[in-house]
Amino acid sequence: MFTLGIDFGTNSVRALVVRCADGAEFGSTVVNYPSGRQGVLLDPKDHNLARQFPGDYLFGLERSVRAALAAAKRKRGFSAAKIIGIGVDTTGSSPIPVDAANRPLAFDKKWKKNLNAQCWLWKDHTGVREAARITELAARHRPQFIAKCGNTYSSEWFWSKIWHCLNVAPEVFAAAHSWVEFADWIPSVLAGVDRPAKVVRGVCCAGHKALYSDEWGGLPDKEFLALLDPRLAELRDRLYEKAHDATVSAGQLGDGWAKTLGLPAGLPIAIGEMDVHYGAIGCGVAEGVLVKVIGTSTCDCAVVSADKAVPDIPGICGIVRGAILPGFYGIEAGQSAVGDIFKWWVEVVCGGGGALHAALTKAAARQRPGQSGLLALDWNNGNRTILVDQQLTGLLLGQTLYTNPAEIYRALIEATAFGARAILERIKEYGVPVNRIVCAGGIAEKNPMLMQIYADITGCTMQVSGSSQACALGSAISAAVLAGAHADFPAAQKAMTSVQPKSYQPIAANQRIYDELYRLYRQVHDAFGGVSQAADLSRVMKDLLALKVVSRE
Amino acid sequence: MFTLGIDFGTNSVRALVVRCADGAEFGSTVVNYPSGRQGVLLDPKDHNLARQFPGDYLFGLERSVRAALAAAKRKRGFSAAKIIGIGVDTTGSSPIPVDAANRPLAFDKKWKKNLNAQCWLWKDHTGVREAARITELAARHRPQFIAKCGNTYSSEWFWSKIWHCLNVAPEVFAAAHSWVEFADWIPSVLAGVDRPAKVVRGVCCAGHKALYSDEWGGLPDKEFLALLDPRLAELRDRLYEKAHDATVSAGQLGDGWAKTLGLPAGLPIAIGEMDVHYGAIGCGVAEGVLVKVIGTSTCDCAVVSADKAVPDIPGICGIVRGAILPGFYGIEAGQSAVGDIFKWWVEVVCGGGGALHAALTKAAARQRPGQSGLLALDWNNGNRTILVDQQLTGLLLGQTLYTNPAEIYRALIEATAFGARAILERIKEYGVPVNRIVCAGGIAEKNPMLMQIYADITGCTMQVSGSSQACALGSAISAAVLAGAHADFPAAQKAMTSVQPKSYQPIAANQRIYDELYRLYRQVHDAFGGVSQAADLSRVMKDLLALKVVSRE
Repeated sequence: MFTLGIDFGTNSVRALVVRCADGAEFGSTVVNYPSGRQGVLLDPKDHNLARQFPGDYLFGLERSVRAALAAAKRKRGFSAAKIIGIGVDTTGSSPIPVDAANRPLAFDKKWKKNLNAQCWLWKDHTGVREAARITELAARHRPQFIAKCGNTYSSEWFWSKIWHCLNVAPEVFAAAHSWVEFADWIPSVLAGVDRPAKVVRGVCCAGHKALYSDEWGGLPDKEFLALLDPRLAELRDRLYEKAHDATVSAGQLGDGWAKTLGLPAGLPIAIGEMDVHYGAIGCGVAEGVLVKVIGTSTCDCAVVSADKAVPDIPGICGIVRGAILPGFYGIEAGQSAVGDIFKWWVEVVCGGGGALHAALTKAAARQRPGQSGLLALDWNNGNRTILVDQQLTGLLLGQTLYTNPAEIYRALIEATAFGARAILERIKEYGVPVNRIVCAGGIAEKNPMLMQIYADITGCTMQVSGSSQACALGSAISAAVLAGAHADFPAAQKAMTSVQPKSYQPIAANQRIYDELYRLYRQVHDAFGGVSQAADLSRVMKDLLALKVVSRE
Repeated sequence: MFTLGIDFGTNSVRALVVRCADGAEFGSTVVNYPSGRQGVLLDPKDHNLARQFPGDYLFGLERSVRAALAAAKRKRGFSAAKIIGIGVDTTGSSPIPVDAANRPLAFDKKWKKNLNAQCWLWKDHTGVREAARITELAARHRPQFIAKCGNTYSSEWFWSKIWHCLNVAPEVFAAAHSWVEFADWIPSVLAGVDRPAKVVRGVCCAGHKALYSDEWGGLPDKEFLALLDPRLAELRDRLYEKAHDATVSAGQLGDGWAKTLGLPAGLPIAIGEMDVHYGAIGCGVAEGVLVKVIGTSTCDCAVVSADKAVPDIPGICGIVRGAILPGFYGIEAGQSAVGDIFKWWVEVVCGGGGALHAALTKAAARQRPGQSGLLALDWNNGNRTILVDQQLTGLLLGQTLYTNPAEIYRALIEATAFGARAILERIKEYGVPVNRIVCAGGIAEKNPMLMQIYADITGCTMQVSGSSQACALGSAISAAVLAGAHADFPAAQKAMTSVQPKSYQPIAANQRIYDELYRLYRQVHDAFGGVSQAADLSRVMKDLLALKVVSRE
C-alpha cells in the first residue's frame, strides 16, 4: 500500500509516492510554477507584495503527480491501484479569494490580471498597517486572541491580507464570495467541492493564522471584526464555523481529478496543513522532540499532549490544539533568517558563490569556540521568536583589524544557534519538554559544522531527518493514517520516518565556552531587543577578549 | 634663506628644504630604513614587540639630507650656504638606551643583536603589564601624574618601556647609562653631544610620555619611581632635570655632521618634537584651529594660550605646556584606527585592493546620510580618546539581508567621524576653542567624500593642509623661528603654511540626519564603553530604520 504526499512550496510543487509499510519513497517529482518570477507575482513598485496565480497550483499538481506515479511505476511492486490516500501541504497563510463556486476569482477573465485577485502568498507583507491595527484592537478588546501568537498579529496572516484587500481593492473584496486558505483549497479541488461553505478547513491554518479557536467559538466574533470593518464581520458568515485536525478527512478524490491524475476515484484526502507542520510529522515530531526545518529561515515545531494545560508562551508564534498532530497542542516558533544570513554574507557582502561558501565553511570549521572574539545577532530580517519584532536588524561586534570573513561567517552561524537556543529555553521554561532536536532542510543535511555548533550551543542532541522530503512525507503519513494503513500517527511515524545514523552530541568543552558566549548574546539581545531598558554592556567586549585568550589554551 | 626639516617616521625619513619667506619646498627626499621589516625589528614570538636599529636613523639622515640638498640645488636661488637652521621631528615615545657617551648600546658589538638594546619604537606594546601597574600606582599615590593623560598610562610610553626592559633584560638596563627619546637624540647627534646629561630634552616627549611637568618639579619623584623599582629611582639621576619648549635650541650643528651633510657647521638646531606636533605647526595650528593628521590612525592637536587655566580633560591623551607651540598648552588626542579600519574592510574582509577601495568610495559617495540604516563603532583597534581603553573592539549594527559592502564602507567612515566628533565635543566642553579643522595626511588629500562626511558630522569647516609634508615643514618652521627668520611661530606659520583652496563646509540637511545618528552612536558608545551602566538601547535599531525612511524623502 502506498500514499501520495503533495507539498506545495513557494516556488514549486513536489509529489511523493510513499510505501506505507516503511516510508520508502518510490517516486518523487518537482514541478516549478510557471508564472511570475520563480512562481511569484511581484509589483516593482511595492517590495512587500507577493502573489501567486492559483492556476499554477493546478498545473503543478497535475504534472508532479503524474510524473511521480510514472517514476513509481518503474519500481517493482507499485501500481497506481495500490495508492490508498492523498495528503496535501502548502505554504500559509496564503488565502485565495474565491467565487460562490469555490473557483478562484483569478480564473475569471475579469480578474485574471488583477494582482489582488490572486493567491496572497505567505510572504506578502502589504498588510503591515492592518496587522498593526489588528494587534492594537485585539490588545484592547480581545487580548486572548493574540496571547497565543506572541501578542502580535502578523502582516503575513489571513485577516491582515483580507482587510488590506478590502482597503486597496474593494472591488475584488466585493467580488469574492469567500476566502480559502491554499492548504484547504487544494484538497477541496481534488474532492470536487463546488461551494466554499463545503470546504473542510484545517485547524492548522485557522488556528495559527486566522485567530480561530474552539475556546471562543471559532473565528473572531462579528463584534470584533466590525471594529476592523463591518464588511469583514459580514464576510465571517461566508467563511466557516468549524476547523478540524487531521482526524477529519478533507473529502474523497472526485471523478474529474481522478481521471486527470490516473488514480482511483474516491481515495480519501487528508486534511490540508501548512508545509512545516506536516514536515514536523515527517521528521517524527512527538512530545519531547523539537523539529527544526532549517532553510532560508527556520521553523520550529513541537507538540504537547492536549491532556496537559499549556500556558500561553510569550513570544511564540502559535499554540494551537490539533494544528500538527491530533490530540496534541501544536507549537510553532521560528527565526526570520538563517540560511539567508549566510547567503547575505557570502554573496552580497563578500561577492562570492558556492565556492566561497565552501571555502569559508572549511576555514570556519577549523576555528575553536570563542577564538574569534566575535558576537553577532541573527536579526538581519527581524526577530520572529522570541521578540516578535520585525523592526530589529543585524549586529556584529568584537571585530579587530585582523578579523577575517571566515570568522564572521562562523559568528553568523553561531548567532543563529544562539537564536535557536533562546527559542528552546523559552518553550522549555513554559513546560514544553525537549529531549532531542530533529532537523530537516538542505543546510542540516549538508553542513556538519553548523549541526555541531547547534548541538554545542543548545546542549541538545541534534539529529537529521532521514527524508529530504519531510513535508511531502508528512502529508503521505497523514493520508496513510486516514486510510487506515496505521492505527494512529505515532504508529505511522514509527514505521514511515527515520533519522540519519549520524547524530551530533554536545561537546562539553565547547559548551562551557558557548554558555559564556550565550550569556553575552542575551545581554546584547535583551538590550537591543527592549527586554532590558537598563543594560550594563560595559563588560561585553572585554569578556569576549578574555574568552579569546581562554579558547587558545 | 632656507631651513631644513627632517621628519623621522615609522618606516622612513624625509628631509625637506623650505624657503623661509613663503614655505616653498625646494627639495624633498625620502629614504627607507634598511633593517628589519619595513624598518621595524620584530619578534615572531611576540606581536607586541617593535624595535628599530638606531643606525638606520643615521643612515637615513645622511642620505635624505644630501639628496634633498642636491634636489634643491637644481632650483634657482638655492645654495647650501643659504640654510640657516635645522629642525627635527620623530616618532615617539621611542626611547633609546645609550651609554655614557650618548651612543646607543646597539652600536656596541656586544648588544648589536639584542632586541632590547635597540630603540623601543612608539608602537611597541611589550610593556602592557608595566603600564597597568604605573596607572594603578599613580592613581593611588600621584593622581596628578595621570590626570593629564586621560588617567591611563600607556604601554607605548617611556616608563612602561624602560621598566619592561628592566624586567625582561636587566643586563641591558644595567648597561644603559641613560635613555634618550628618539626626538631628542637626533638633534644631540647633529650637535655632537657626547654625554646624555648634556642632551637638550624637549618638553613635548617629556610632558606627554614621561610624566614630566614643571608643576611637580620635572620627572616623577624618586619616591614614586621606587614604588615601581628602586633601580628606576636611581636612573632618574641619569636622565634630566629640565625639559624645554621650542624657544630653546637643541644645539649647533657639529663639525662632523656638517661635513657629512655638506652644511655649514654651527647651524642652530631646533628642539626635537614628536612628528604630529611639528605636523600641527606645519598645518597652521593656533588657538581655535584643530589639526587632524589622518592616516592609519589619527592624531588631533590643539593649543590654548598658557595664560588661560586649562583644566584636566578626562580621556584626553595629554595636556602639556609648550609641547607644540611655546606659550601654549599643547593638547593631544587621537583615534587608534582610522585608515586602518577602511583598509581592514577592503583588504582583509572583502579581499580587494586599490581598485576596490576606489569602487567602494565611488558607490559610498552616492549614498545619502542615514540611507543604509547602519551604525558602526570605530574601535577595531580600541579607543584612544575619549575612553582610553584598548580592550574595546569594533561593532556594526543595522544590517539587513540587502546591506552591501559599500554601505558598510561608508558606515565605517562615518564611525571614524563620530569618533572625531566625540573628541571635538570633549575638548570644546572643557574650554578649548575650535573654529575650524585643518587635516593632513593622504586620506585627507585624496578622499573628498570622507572630508565632506567629517564636515557634516562635526559641523565644522574642514580644510586640507597646503603641504603634503606637514611634519617636516613644521620642523623647518621651528628652525626658521629659532634662526630668526621670523619673529615668532605665528608669523612664521603665516608666511610658511597654507591650506588648499578647496574647503569642506557642513551641509545643513546632512547635519540634521547626522546629529540624530550621532545621538545613537553615543548611546551605543556609552553603553559598550562603560560610560553608561544602565543603557536603554531598545530604540536604536528602530530609530535607524526610521532615519532610513527619512533619508529617502
